[in-house]
Amino acid sequence: MKLTKKNYYLWKKAKRLIPGGNMILSKRPELILPVYWPTYYKKAKGIEIWDLDKKKYLDFSLMGVGTNILGYSYKSINDKVKNSIDNGNMSSLNCLEELNLTRELLNINKWAGMVKYARSGGEANAIAVRIARAASGKDDVAVCGYHGWHDWYLSANLKKKNQIEKYLLSGLQTSGVPKYLSNSVHTFRFNDFEGLKKLLKNNSKIGILKMEVSRNFEPNKLFLRKVRSLCTKNKIILIFDECTSGFRETYGGIHKKYNVNPDIVIYGKALGNGHAITAIIGKKVIMRHAKNTFISSTFWSERSGFVAALETLKVMKSQKTWLTISRKGQKIKKKWGEIFKKYNYDVEISGLKSIPSFIFLKKNKERTTFISQEMLKKGIMCGSLLYVSVAHKDNLIDNYLKQFEKVVSQMKKIENKKIDLKKKLLGPIKSESFKRLN
Amino acid sequence: MKLTKKNYYLWKKAKRLIPGGNMILSKRPELILPVYWPTYYKKAKGIEIWDLDKKKYLDFSLMGVGTNILGYSYKSINDKVKNSIDNGNMSSLNCLEELNLTRELLNINKWAGMVKYARSGGEANAIAVRIARAASGKDDVAVCGYHGWHDWYLSANLKKKNQIEKYLLSGLQTSGVPKYLSNSVHTFRFNDFEGLKKLLKNNSKIGILKMEVSRNFEPNKLFLRKVRSLCTKNKIILIFDECTSGFRETYGGIHKKYNVNPDIVIYGKALGNGHAITAIIGKKVIMRHAKNTFISSTFWSERSGFVAALETLKVMKSQKTWLTISRKGQKIKKKWGEIFKKYNYDVEISGLKSIPSFIFLKKNKERTTFISQEMLKKGIMCGSLLYVSVAHKDNLIDNYLKQFEKVVSQMKKIENKKIDLKKKLLGPIKSESFKRLN
Repeated sequence: MKLTKKNYYLWKKAKRLIPGGNMILSKRPELILPVYWPTYYKKAKGIEIWDLDKKKYLDFSLMGVGTNILGYSYKSINDKVKNSIDNGNMSSLNCLEELNLTRELLNINKWAGMVKYARSGGEANAIAVRIARAASGKDDVAVCGYHGWHDWYLSANLKKKNQIEKYLLSGLQTSGVPKYLSNSVHTFRFNDFEGLKKLLKNNSKIGILKMEVSRNFEPNKLFLRKVRSLCTKNKIILIFDECTSGFRETYGGIHKKYNVNPDIVIYGKALGNGHAITAIIGKKVIMRHAKNTFISSTFWSERSGFVAALETLKVMKSQKTWLTISRKGQKIKKKWGEIFKKYNYDVEISGLKSIPSFIFLKKNKERTTFISQEMLKKGIMCGSLLYVSVAHKDNLIDNYLKQFEKVVSQMKKIENKKIDLKKKLLGPIKSESFKRLN
Repeated sequence: MKLTKKNYYLWKKAKRLIPGGNMILSKRPELILPVYWPTYYKKAKGIEIWDLDKKKYLDFSLMGVGTNILGYSYKSINDKVKNSIDNGNMSSLNCLEELNLTRELLNINKWAGMVKYARSGGEANAIAVRIARAASGKDDVAVCGYHGWHDWYLSANLKKKNQIEKYLLSGLQTSGVPKYLSNSVHTFRFNDFEGLKKLLKNNSKIGILKMEVSRNFEPNKLFLRKVRSLCTKNKIILIFDECTSGFRETYGGIHKKYNVNPDIVIYGKALGNGHAITAIIGKKVIMRHAKNTFISSTFWSERSGFVAALETLKVMKSQKTWLTISRKGQKIKKKWGEIFKKYNYDVEISGLKSIPSFIFLKKNKERTTFISQEMLKKGIMCGSLLYVSVAHKDNLIDNYLKQFEKVVSQMKKIENKKIDLKKKLLGPIKSESFKRLN
């Protein structure tokens, strides 16, 4: 497939009219393959994506940034959502699907008693923090991981120590986050229980602890349990942000795997298989503090999100999709390891079972840009991170891995000839978005 | 129509599982007609709503809390959205509709150069404040009006003076809003230019002024112009929140009527005619500061919102719907006035032309509850606030007004007999949500 610059000109136009070009960092072409990435789509189905010129690609990259475990445009979900649109997506009354979804989410999280909803993960995180602050009576929060764009979270980066930047993620800029919040949020490192203990000991104003259960790496044995005990002992509200990890390794949160329950859990991303819906699920004794604080938005009552989530849960439950995508992801990780070993590349492979990612220990950016470029020529969209879906059928994965090996082999040949890989790139090297350090 | 408690039991169940029962205050039945309000819908079309028992009502109340200027379930919008769902609501690539919508919004707002998007009004307001803070380099904000549930806004209520509560709106509770923000946001009264001048003089840290252009009342002659000049002179970024007023009196913001342009304007509600989409539109010199601050969310890239907004704008533009709904609303206001005068009730009628509302100067809550109850028996949903849509056909309005007069006459007869109106209520009196004081 011949790569063209056509969509690049559209993207350049978009960047002149929309700061950043779009509303989500991860979908900016600069982060995978500047200039030649297809950037815009017309149609998506399963793992197939058609660009504006109707050129077809197989998506071995972000799968909607983790939203589509069942693949794009899943028929039964589409049918339910379209039917609810025919019957009115919005009205002055409430939709019963909101209550039905609540029942199913509480069924999944037996330890919890109440649910709130939003339409984006950042907002769900902000609602959880608001309610937890109301319940604990304390304003300070200990955090580990990524929790969105809102002031409460980014404020951790305002301190002189630049906490998120230094410890957790690089690249989250904070201009416009009010300095008043500089001392309200405190970071700790994943798997560092002693560091966390010390943090809590020195900050008696911390009433909330929010973390991702697992992201690039698994929690050490007992780490989660010790966090849970420490929170219980110190009357700290424990929040697990499972926007990314939810429904990827269990029917619900990944915390189920470790037998540790939080006080509040947040789901997003995969919950509606590509329709906007996020949920905040918590213990009744905490959640009912929401009555003392104003949390309300018109579009949170939109019917489509609840409808999509109900059908998505039904399909995931009946197909046990978390097992399928984990198996597929494990296979990809294993094969990547073999390929990189065969061609003598030092690569670190990490991520959840169904979200494998790799990083070259040397020349990562130019090498991954080269791989994305060459794979795209073969009609395969891929970066160094892959959200596996059930639509990644085994034969498609086998073919992807075969093409992937060819490209790695090709890269090795070039490098063996001491040719600068940059000279083989049609466009610039990719830039990096925010990056996980823990 | 016989009123039943059936849906009330469902609602009671919902309140046990969802704090407040739902995600938007305005759709809580306690605020219009406790116990007997239909509360849940199955279908909505035009201004007709069917409840779970398929009983049909005409919506002369909130019309989706202002989201549906074209009426519920508008065919051409539904068709476009359903088509976009068939072609994939989400993918790893961006949708071109985002850029196309941007072009149209900039066409409507010639003074502006860039656009950002979100899926709820509260979030759009928070994005606007983030960008404005980044651009101005100052953290403090002067506010007038209602701007959502986020920390930045509610923090104005944390002060000892309880500013929002005292001056602007009552009932916005702040438990869980971090005390760190107590001195960051400052209120001023609508139409009080001298008060505003004094506020700015005493608070040199204020770099942003956010207000609704008009809500219950029109701005005094020159007020807006003087605000604009003051902001320009003091290098304060002026933001108009037109989530509610947008597209109700012009093709765009109500500020067009007054020939005063802000630096940033926010639209929501009616923009997607019942599909979630909100927009932040601003001058390039300000908006480009977004590049220095992390603002990103997966579901903001959902295709349906952009698609719905493009078609909604097209229909509104071609039908000049703002003229139609304004005319209809004016007619209702006039007739309400005549009816209340005829039956000798002291009532204040206010609101935008197409969002008429009334308040009895005495016994307001029991009287409006009575009206809602008796109108519901006639198959008409109504409170004391009405969002007019083009689907409120003139014959339907005439009938509504006829029935309305009957109920007011009936109420007068009861009160003339010195019978306590409360005894005529099947359930409790309505409670009040947050209330406008300006």
